[in-house]
Amino acid sequence: MTVKNAFYAQSGGVTAVINASACGVLEAARRHPDKIGTVYAGHNGILGALREELIDTSKESAETIAALRYTPGGAFGSCRFKMSSIEDNEVQYQRLIEVFQAHNIGYFFYNGGGDSMDTAHKVSYYSKKMGYPITCIGVPKTVDNDLPATDTCPGFGSVAKYVATSIKEASLDIESMHETSTKVFIMEVMGRHAGWITAAAALAMEEENDPPHMLLFPEVDFCRESFLAKVQRIVEQHGYCVIVASEGTHYADGTFLSASRTTDAFGHVQLGGTAPILARMVKDSLGYKYHWAVLDYLQRSARHLASAVDVEQAYAVGSSAVEFALSGKNGVMATIVREENEGDEYVWSIGEAPLEMVANVEMKMPAHFIAPDGLHITEECRTYLQPLIQGEDLPPFKKGVPVFAKLEKHFVEKKLPAFDI
Amino acid sequence: MTVKNAFYAQSGGVTAVINASACGVLEAARRHPDKIGTVYAGHNGILGALREELIDTSKESAETIAALRYTPGGAFGSCRFKMSSIEDNEVQYQRLIEVFQAHNIGYFFYNGGGDSMDTAHKVSYYSKKMGYPITCIGVPKTVDNDLPATDTCPGFGSVAKYVATSIKEASLDIESMHETSTKVFIMEVMGRHAGWITAAAALAMEEENDPPHMLLFPEVDFCRESFLAKVQRIVEQHGYCVIVASEGTHYADGTFLSASRTTDAFGHVQLGGTAPILARMVKDSLGYKYHWAVLDYLQRSARHLASAVDVEQAYAVGSSAVEFALSGKNGVMATIVREENEGDEYVWSIGEAPLEMVANVEMKMPAHFIAPDGLHITEECRTYLQPLIQGEDLPPFKKGVPVFAKLEKHFVEKKLPAFDI
Repeated sequence: MTVKNAFYAQSGGVTAVINASACGVLEAARRHPDKIGTVYAGHNGILGALREELIDTSKESAETIAALRYTPGGAFGSCRFKMSSIEDNEVQYQRLIEVFQAHNIGYFFYNGGGDSMDTAHKVSYYSKKMGYPITCIGVPKTVDNDLPATDTCPGFGSVAKYVATSIKEASLDIESMHETSTKVFIMEVMGRHAGWITAAAALAMEEENDPPHMLLFPEVDFCRESFLAKVQRIVEQHGYCVIVASEGTHYADGTFLSASRTTDAFGHVQLGGTAPILARMVKDSLGYKYHWAVLDYLQRSARHLASAVDVEQAYAVGSSAVEFALSGKNGVMATIVREENEGDEYVWSIGEAPLEMVANVEMKMPAHFIAPDGLHITEECRTYLQPLIQGEDLPPFKKGVPVFAKLEKHFVEKKLPAFDI
Repeated sequence: MTVKNAFYAQSGGVTAVINASACGVLEAARRHPDKIGTVYAGHNGILGALREELIDTSKESAETIAALRYTPGGAFGSCRFKMSSIEDNEVQYQRLIEVFQAHNIGYFFYNGGGDSMDTAHKVSYYSKKMGYPITCIGVPKTVDNDLPATDTCPGFGSVAKYVATSIKEASLDIESMHETSTKVFIMEVMGRHAGWITAAAALAMEEENDPPHMLLFPEVDFCRESFLAKVQRIVEQHGYCVIVASEGTHYADGTFLSASRTTDAFGHVQLGGTAPILARMVKDSLGYKYHWAVLDYLQRSARHLASAVDVEQAYAVGSSAVEFALSGKNGVMATIVREENEGDEYVWSIGEAPLEMVANVEMKMPAHFIAPDGLHITEECRTYLQPLIQGEDLPPFKKGVPVFAKLEKHFVEKKLPAFDI
């Protein structure tokens, strides 16, 4: 087996553990110098390949690579850039192959979600067609937990743990002050089309009726009347109401609540978040004092509260991707397989799925995971989610804040003319 | 010294460590059964005293009391209720003394901010006047860090650590995606009148020019032009701009940005947060893609990321309050004294300040802590803040989320007729 170099790239929205996958890829590759030469990382994802902006990871120390395991964000840079279809823009694929060829790259490890798996699949197919076959292995990543064929998606478990912990802590705040202060608290979390992150907030509960009292999923059409009726019922019952809402909460006609057009004095359109819109709805109709929070990027960056299971899995899909490539596999994505789930026992292993099976499929919450009233989860959903947030895995702290990896980022000398994207 | 019972109450907005102060008070009192009988906690703060709703803390196990040290929120309930002046509502003070007398209460430990210290001061004065002298000791608490006579306020250090860590993590997210995605990120934090929490975000920086790039304080009038000019300059320089804004950010005329009146299609007034208002301003004028987060209650409840120094100090002001009372002190608040601050060395001790000196004084950030352009902090401010976020002190976790104290809350039998507040 001749020694070929490898290309690794991060794609789409980053997570608290995508760099743990990078760490897995790089450390595994370094264990096989006889088969894999240098791993080049794309600067800002696939754009780095198209522009021939390659970061030579061999110039980074073993300590720095190890530190990626506890560093949030995308250390090599990520991007929101979807490759067109081969039919529409074949030159883009030609360019990729040219860059790979110019740098003797035989392996392509793509760390991303459904779109990225689609791209990896096309590159695998096209490279064969061009007579320069590239081994393409997908490394799953997405906080949305919406990839098929895998038990969960690296990145999700840590958001889930952060969201459940945060709402459990905040609920104690509201409980202690509700008589004379806030009666309704709304926390908005990510999830434009799938409600997994919202569902995870339910893991804050120790007993039935514990907060959060209501969950709003993108899988369920929002009904103003039933929402307000439940808020009122819960406030009358418990004195306060804690709600977790997906950013993708929408009306039956598909309009996102956050897109509710409100214009200010100057006629500017205001894009409110889902939480403030719900809060105003509560205030206008029920008159309760409210507070709301919007976590936004904090939830997918909160490495300080990462799930140990999630970090393990993120690392494992990265290192397994390399082992897959070296064992001759191609056009597959490393997956997580749930072997056992007895009570607190959660046994998982690494499996694989063909890229075309994963590409562009969005796994929403199944109906049996959502309570009959559409406003909470079922026990079955809880059983599925529970193991994914197990264990704490803190980064090192210095001067009171976490210290993260700092890459030197040595760029490889370009060998090709510039390419106009 | 005859054995008297004690009354402890939590007041105003709760924090991640106010229960650590409760733990300090209760554990210290239990060490002196010869001097302090039972400690009664007010249900929902001072309202518990006025209504004679007293929780018998002697019925709680030592384990439960110890668990208060790592439990956020106000375990006995807190309230937003300001006692009127003695002149305006003497009956309220009479009622307090009657309740204290009825339950043989000789000590009043009041855990709160400036208003509460004012109340404790009045109770101390009035009880003497009524011939039933109560020993009143203040236990400081406020995330706003705006109490005078103390180096810092228990509750602040933990918010500071949470805010600095969160913005450091989120900044890596934005840095890795800014080329093709978000260019401007705005995080809104608490601080209506004082910018201490916003200032603490600067502790995320390791080097000059690290994010956060801009801080908006309530101490500085907001200027749209200079704000937008700096955003543009920073984006052109670094590719992205990270901003932390106080909820109390306001224009020169005192109008809060968050109070900007925007009305929707139905004419409803929308109370936007400060962050979304700033985000829209950036979008409208510079066209940059933005994201924003509003932490709200999460920041003052985030016990999972508490500062070990803050927890220590919160516990110490509680236990010292009891020692003060037993040593004959009265009408004072326990304070934190900075003995030394050489580099990473931070030595502090417990001191005291007369309640009337603390009552209703709001300590804003001094001018020399704010950078000349009004949009960042000075090195002097950094030196002051740095030690307050030192050390991690995690609560125990079970099933992936923290487990907190659960009180039994045995209410004492009432001896007096109901009182109409």
